[in-house]
Amino acid sequence: MYNAKAYSVASATSPFTRTTIERRDPTPHDVQIEILFCGICHSDLHQARNEWSGMPTVYPCVPGHEIVGRVTKVGSAVTSFKPGDLAGVGCLVDSDGTCPECRSHHEQFCASAAYTYNAPDRHTGKVTYGGYSDSIVVDERFALRLPKNLDLAGAAPLLCAGITTWSPLRRQGVGKGKKVGIVGLGGLGHMGVKLARALGAHVAVFTTSPAKTEDALRLGAHEVVVSRNANEMGKQAGTFDMILDTVSAVHDLHPYLRALKRDGNLTLVGAPDQPHAVSAFGLIFGNKSLSGSLIGGIQPTQEMLDFCGEHGITSDVEVIPIQKVNEAYERLLRSDVKYRFSIDMASLKAE
Amino acid sequence: MYNAKAYSVASATSPFTRTTIERRDPTPHDVQIEILFCGICHSDLHQARNEWSGMPTVYPCVPGHEIVGRVTKVGSAVTSFKPGDLAGVGCLVDSDGTCPECRSHHEQFCASAAYTYNAPDRHTGKVTYGGYSDSIVVDERFALRLPKNLDLAGAAPLLCAGITTWSPLRRQGVGKGKKVGIVGLGGLGHMGVKLARALGAHVAVFTTSPAKTEDALRLGAHEVVVSRNANEMGKQAGTFDMILDTVSAVHDLHPYLRALKRDGNLTLVGAPDQPHAVSAFGLIFGNKSLSGSLIGGIQPTQEMLDFCGEHGITSDVEVIPIQKVNEAYERLLRSDVKYRFSIDMASLKAE
Repeated sequence: MYNAKAYSVASATSPFTRTTIERRDPTPHDVQIEILFCGICHSDLHQARNEWSGMPTVYPCVPGHEIVGRVTKVGSAVTSFKPGDLAGVGCLVDSDGTCPECRSHHEQFCASAAYTYNAPDRHTGKVTYGGYSDSIVVDERFALRLPKNLDLAGAAPLLCAGITTWSPLRRQGVGKGKKVGIVGLGGLGHMGVKLARALGAHVAVFTTSPAKTEDALRLGAHEVVVSRNANEMGKQAGTFDMILDTVSAVHDLHPYLRALKRDGNLTLVGAPDQPHAVSAFGLIFGNKSLSGSLIGGIQPTQEMLDFCGEHGITSDVEVIPIQKVNEAYERLLRSDVKYRFSIDMASLKAE
Repeated sequence: MYNAKAYSVASATSPFTRTTIERRDPTPHDVQIEILFCGICHSDLHQARNEWSGMPTVYPCVPGHEIVGRVTKVGSAVTSFKPGDLAGVGCLVDSDGTCPECRSHHEQFCASAAYTYNAPDRHTGKVTYGGYSDSIVVDERFALRLPKNLDLAGAAPLLCAGITTWSPLRRQGVGKGKKVGIVGLGGLGHMGVKLARALGAHVAVFTTSPAKTEDALRLGAHEVVVSRNANEMGKQAGTFDMILDTVSAVHDLHPYLRALKRDGNLTLVGAPDQPHAVSAFGLIFGNKSLSGSLIGGIQPTQEMLDFCGEHGITSDVEVIPIQKVNEAYERLLRSDVKYRFSIDMASLKAE
């Protein structure tokens, strides 16, 4: 074991403070990574504040699952990485590797999957600690190769926001000739716009705020629909192949169901605590479907990263020092960020 | 025009009474059919009693869209039928025939689609009258060929209950190696069991009533799961490729979502007036989807009829004279029928 610097919360109501955590020494299959940047995902906030009844938080908690960095050491059996390589770590750091979910590249649904933080750590017997730290050790199966041409601060959010939006777009066959809507222009939504556009689709952003129009178009949207304008929404009825809904508050899904073509799909990647009200008629008339999608497995994450490398896609980030993480959480709650905070871990090393 | 005998309701609260309606003389593209049997669909009751706010009833109303009979006359341009042939008519009697929905065999979604009853009739300028009658005239595009080996009384419900369950089973690729659940063992559900079984799937019936076990197995189910038994339901978690939910009252969908495998689908064909509560988490964990499905186009209806002919599949019916239609509606409300009423139209001719 060795000591790593980190920022942790001690309870649901505590601010982040500087701490020291223990990481395992790399086993033969492990990669040790010096963390350079870590994105701040809204899930980090939910978990830090123990807001998910289904996943109680173990304290102290070190969040962070949008990790990019440089390999500093590899175990003797590691074949995919060598010291000096860039590497990324997303939401997952472990799974059994043998079950049908793992074999079909859906490690997130393996019964033994371990999330990057707040999950049982079979190596230490304690809990996993995430990327608000200067270093991490993971099995090479969970380390991703990063395209060399991407800005690292902006690449970090690809590890969660990128794969979370990529998976449903790919599952629904988004590409040339398809019309795709994105609901919510935040950390997830702005990645959905960039990815759908690069996949060749016609992209529309649904927003409650006309003020976001210019930014949506800059990010790659072909058009912007003000969802509070019934007239504008009416014109879009029956025209979308797929709509990706990234909003994690309860809202009326029916305007988006109406905007779908026959056989169209509305996929939710945001999850409010309360259920949505869904009219069966809204699904039946048009043979429509409402789906959910949870992050993605390791192979599709690598595909997404390679695609982003080819297309020069990164997240729009505001880079902050780790000392500003408490302030960043407050701003996150006000959606006051375009569109993701990325922590520059040099600020932690300097402490 | 010519006079046909029929049973109609004069208002939302009136009983059915014997009446005479006008049918058009067959145009060059029309087929005139002597109706032999007509199934009673729950939709008939909703429409007769004006219970659908989105589709107000025009009175007098003659319901019935599960029609089988014998061709008595054909127009000069008709090529598919000749007098003496068996023919069926389902939920649709008109559409523009040229739009993308029609060209892709989804006439039910054509903007000019006309339902078999209570729809604007472009021939008469009035309203369409359904199958509680001794005769009907339809464009040959909407007349179905009936396999000769099927009992006609039991074949009638295939025209709605059959296609309504067939469409989603086919869309979801139900067949050998798939595990399929059917929720609700009524007119639709019992057809779902027969069709899914004949398609080669492993079929389970979910029921609130253990008393239905024997019948479910007789109809073709491999197993019966008592949905009120949390232990039984727990054992089924994550095992179903698809579940077809035929219940048209609001109920908790989450036990069925939990029963789905990753990427599994729950399709609703029943539509309560009130919305369902749907947890985004229930869809996200497992990349699951909730769909709706509305009857089916003409070509898939013909495919379903041909399939039923090959596999000897008909609905389980209780044959009644038309004079008992009022009583049948009361029994329908109590689910007191196994599993569909089929009106023997000889009873109307005798009046």
